[in-house]
Amino acid sequence: MNLSSPDSGNGHRVVFQFVSPDVASQKALISNLKNLLAAWPEVEIEVVVHGPGISLVTTQQTQHARQLQTFADSHHVRFVVCENSLRSKQLSLADMLPFVETVPVAIVELILKQEQGWAYIKGGL
Amino acid sequence: MNLSSPDSGNGHRVVFQFVSPDVASQKALISNLKNLLAAWPEVEIEVVVHGPGISLVTTQQTQHARQLQTFADSHHVRFVVCENSLRSKQLSLADMLPFVETVPVAIVELILKQEQGWAYIKGGL
Amino acid sequence: MNLSSPDSGNGHRVVFQFVSPDVASQKALISNLKNLLAAWPEVEIEVVVHGPGISLVTTQQTQHARQLQTFADSHHVRFVVCENSLRSKQLSLADMLPFVETVPVAIVELILKQEQGWAYIKGGL
Repeated sequence: MNLSSPDSGNGHRVVFQFVSPDVASQKALISNLKNLLAAWPEVEIEVVVHGPGISLVTTQQTQHARQLQTFADSHHVRFVVCENSLRSKQLSLADMLPFVETVPVAIVELILKQEQGWAYIKGGL
Repeated sequence: MNLSSPDSGNGHRVVFQFVSPDVASQKALISNLKNLLAAWPEVEIEVVVHGPGISLVTTQQTQHARQLQTFADSHHVRFVVCENSLRSKQLSLADMLPFVETVPVAIVELILKQEQGWAYIKGGL
Repeated sequence: MNLSSPDSGNGHRVVFQFVSPDVASQKALISNLKNLLAAWPEVEIEVVVHGPGISLVTTQQTQHARQLQTFADSHHVRFVVCENSLRSKQLSLADMLPFVETVPVAIVELILKQEQGWAYIKGGL
């Protein structure tokens, strides 16, 4: 793996944690994903959204539905929300953008992914 | 390790870094710990508290003494504060909640834990 | 590796991500680096600066030029900025402090370092 060699990103895996409510952090995350996919179109990305971060993928609240759909359509980015976070906000999967999936517990998911060798990035500012 | 199989969390280890002064970040950390322990009662957790994060475990300042004590009583969560941070704030271990321990340097602790295979989570928003 | 044994930090490697625009986060990062180098003078550190974090190493904006130069002079800390971030801010390497280097994509760099066994710390509050 060398930054100067041709590299599709195939085999690289990264999990982002996104928990921030703020708009600037949402923009930072989207910019990170765009730049990462431009460099490595075949990288495998999972974005674990929980707590106040959920507004990013809530249909009634998001300002980035179209861009997030483009990421999901690439088949290289999965967005998963925490079921605990949904419950505590009295939301359900039906309130999320259509490509969103769930995991039972965000932190468990972040631990499992790291144990499986995925790199970890805390998203946002 | 499979989210859908019965799993006590035994053998999973995670270190949280907590450095934020803000109340919303404290609530997010506590919520993360609660949900994690509910899913995995035998997970091993260490919370490394440093910098402005120290108010969380300072007896005169914390708003979460009782909840943190419950975590500590579970014997699955350790809270450690950075001795450098204590010195720079002219505080000592006696000013911390009774179950708090110290480490010489927070960042060293976070590096060592990752080298030993612990997952890393940056706590807060 | 034991915190209580004499240890120069030789062989330990850590990558910091720094993306925050705020002054308190800059101070936290600098404090972290100071304390880490005091404990482990031979640790290998890379600070990946991107997004709004770039003001930290922009010559016209930084309030920490002297301290950062001292870190760079130690030959144990490298500061790298993201070329995508430079472009999006219409800046070039010439606008950065003299010891700053670039990487094509910040997130790619953070993934590669973790894959190579470096510990990861999200800098700032």
